[in-house]
Amino acid sequence: MNIPQLFADALPDLRVSTAPDDLEAYGQDWTRLVKPAPSAIVFPASTEEVVKLVRLARREALHLVPSGGRTGLSGGASAGHGEVVVSLDRMDRILDFDPVDRLVHVQAGVVTQKLQEFAAEQGLSYPVDFASKGSSQIGGNIATNAGGIKVLRYGMTRDWVAGLEVVTGTGEVLELNRGLIKNATGYDLRHLFIGSEGTLGIIVGATMELAEPPPAQAVMVLATDSMSAVMEIFRLARNRLALSAFEFFSRPALEKVLARHSLQRPLESSAEYYCLLEFDQDEDAALGFFEAAMEGGWADDGVVSQSEAQAQALWALRENISESIAPDLPYKNDLAVRVSAVPAFLEELDALVAERYPDFEVVWFGHIGDGNLHLNILKPAELEPEAFRSACEGVNDEVFALVRNYGGSISAEHGVGLLKRPYLDYSRSAEELAAFRAIKQVFDPDRIMNPGKLID
Amino acid sequence: MNIPQLFADALPDLRVSTAPDDLEAYGQDWTRLVKPAPSAIVFPASTEEVVKLVRLARREALHLVPSGGRTGLSGGASAGHGEVVVSLDRMDRILDFDPVDRLVHVQAGVVTQKLQEFAAEQGLSYPVDFASKGSSQIGGNIATNAGGIKVLRYGMTRDWVAGLEVVTGTGEVLELNRGLIKNATGYDLRHLFIGSEGTLGIIVGATMELAEPPPAQAVMVLATDSMSAVMEIFRLARNRLALSAFEFFSRPALEKVLARHSLQRPLESSAEYYCLLEFDQDEDAALGFFEAAMEGGWADDGVVSQSEAQAQALWALRENISESIAPDLPYKNDLAVRVSAVPAFLEELDALVAERYPDFEVVWFGHIGDGNLHLNILKPAELEPEAFRSACEGVNDEVFALVRNYGGSISAEHGVGLLKRPYLDYSRSAEELAAFRAIKQVFDPDRIMNPGKLID
Repeated sequence: MNIPQLFADALPDLRVSTAPDDLEAYGQDWTRLVKPAPSAIVFPASTEEVVKLVRLARREALHLVPSGGRTGLSGGASAGHGEVVVSLDRMDRILDFDPVDRLVHVQAGVVTQKLQEFAAEQGLSYPVDFASKGSSQIGGNIATNAGGIKVLRYGMTRDWVAGLEVVTGTGEVLELNRGLIKNATGYDLRHLFIGSEGTLGIIVGATMELAEPPPAQAVMVLATDSMSAVMEIFRLARNRLALSAFEFFSRPALEKVLARHSLQRPLESSAEYYCLLEFDQDEDAALGFFEAAMEGGWADDGVVSQSEAQAQALWALRENISESIAPDLPYKNDLAVRVSAVPAFLEELDALVAERYPDFEVVWFGHIGDGNLHLNILKPAELEPEAFRSACEGVNDEVFALVRNYGGSISAEHGVGLLKRPYLDYSRSAEELAAFRAIKQVFDPDRIMNPGKLID
Repeated sequence: MNIPQLFADALPDLRVSTAPDDLEAYGQDWTRLVKPAPSAIVFPASTEEVVKLVRLARREALHLVPSGGRTGLSGGASAGHGEVVVSLDRMDRILDFDPVDRLVHVQAGVVTQKLQEFAAEQGLSYPVDFASKGSSQIGGNIATNAGGIKVLRYGMTRDWVAGLEVVTGTGEVLELNRGLIKNATGYDLRHLFIGSEGTLGIIVGATMELAEPPPAQAVMVLATDSMSAVMEIFRLARNRLALSAFEFFSRPALEKVLARHSLQRPLESSAEYYCLLEFDQDEDAALGFFEAAMEGGWADDGVVSQSEAQAQALWALRENISESIAPDLPYKNDLAVRVSAVPAFLEELDALVAERYPDFEVVWFGHIGDGNLHLNILKPAELEPEAFRSACEGVNDEVFALVRNYGGSISAEHGVGLLKRPYLDYSRSAEELAAFRAIKQVFDPDRIMNPGKLID
């Protein structure tokens, strides 16, 4: 089947590309997990075009991969088997805003940072924030229920979706919830589509809630030598400060960032772990907390931002970790347990990793306040990527069995995509997986939507 | 079929009642919509008993009605056709609590107020609050996604459910999310069961998040003569005060409460509408706001609580409305539109109601901050209940058509149950309703769960 010709005949107005650069760029996400091999990239400009496209795909048995900013870390937006990639790039308009409701209606292709900037222009804030904000799109954020660095205060993307417009795998348009605060009229399908990773349909628009801008923030970095002390610092901080973020990272993470960016070392001494706290500015509270953390023997050293520029410089130490380790082709684990289980879980996991990856460098960071740990195994320069990945995958079953023992999640915020699909049963029961398949059947009976991802 | 005998044979340990008082009490909710006629009430004491019960019901084609505190206002828990009512009364234990996670694991039959008191004992709060807290149960709150009077600050019940245990209509146990903050492992079935009104399965347990207790609160009541002024007061209050509630009620609502309770009239003068605001105590802000509301010409008079006792007395004026009008057998409408649409919607609705109910007394109250209006039509003493209801239902299509024009909801927080089922298509599309039926088929293929409610 000549797919570009099919589109030219059936949907002559639809923009279609088969340029090699586009196939390469739009056929993969940040994982570089799959060799990109889509048959075409299409760029619908309206919901109506998406509907026509899905109906054509049903008739012709085309496989569709919805595509946002492709900043995903699970291969969820990759296209390695002749799929048609449906890019939302052209549906990038902010449609309207109401200051009383504090709701903004956007097309799915609006980039996160553009929404943040729009909110700031209205004297408000879109508080879901992460390193990929410059290219991730709202539709993709919703499809993966993106989290990020302010979840502790502001929750996940899910918490800001007041309405959702989707084109299902049957080519029907659903307008879900329409921005209402209260709406007790049956099953909330909006929440079913949030986090569904493009397997039920294509998100084409959303009504997002905006927040009051936060009060002035301060940033503190503390050094400590044990994970149990990190947890004590978290407890103390939660009681003493109005936290909006509590992040941690390990010494190798900091060293990687300092080696690859011209940033100042935050503290003179070196330590095994660093905590980064952001909180509502309050000098007395900050000082009292810091003294208590030192007196308790949990913190060894610390620094508090004295200016917005210094706050940003401290955040840069945390936000540049992923990018700084990218050249080491890290094998990423994105694990979550209940916050209370973090110390015991981390101790067991640390021992397991040390035993099973003795020759690999390990970089820890994460969102302690959410129970979310990012475990990154770096590829030794001399090892082939395939051999490295296979070595890492060999340990997955043990890592994930540990996650299961703690009632945790094998994917806290990256999603399932291709990468975690073989392991989904460590976090979801056979009955849940059967329900997934049945729900998929409801909205995508021909299995044209993002096949091979999540379930299927 | 002799249903009590069936239970005695198949599940001899299950507590079963066919006492007339129980059939009467457990066969209906607060609507008194249906003449109670269940065939039996069963009181399982464990998840295992619920599983056995559902499996037996599948085999024997019994219809099950899950039953919490039966404080519902849509007939969702009524049993008028020989159903078996499954009361969660015996599953009323608080199982465990973790202070680091601030999560409490409860059985579904725990009464709302008991959870609130437990939270207070831990120095925390369970902030979802409504007049029926003394008898409503957590399982029922979740099944209806209950709202209440603090939604403005704390959201709906949905926002506090960190984990859910359900027994589906196929007799399978699903443990959904297990209290994790982040869990990107596929469809979030938890949110599908929240608000499903017992039509997909029986909620048997939940992991609820607790909140920091709020700072000291003050309560203000303002009098005004127009709905547009109510909206201006809301806008002003949201900018000037840290609001946790913004309620309104009409003069007839106040007069009913004062006639039936020994409460003090809040203000000497009379007005068409009253606003009740709760906010973080701040005398300067309160005074500045009050002066601005008077200067703007929106408020005619006002009072601020000077003590906790006075705050409670002011709240009592609002919280006793439903009970005070209950003897008038009100026909209740529970409508929602976007907050920004409230003034125009209310003006049209007011005109419609005045034209179509010229002989009926109308009582307004609601949660303006959520766009949620409760329109209560009181039954004239001389009119028979059936004739009254029929007269009210005759206007429903016009009221709901207006709601649809405004993109609103015909049931903001009461749910669909029996009462709104005939009108569901005013708020949900044919495609959504088809999806409801297909999802029902996934979890309850034999249609034994709460038949006749919501859809079906």
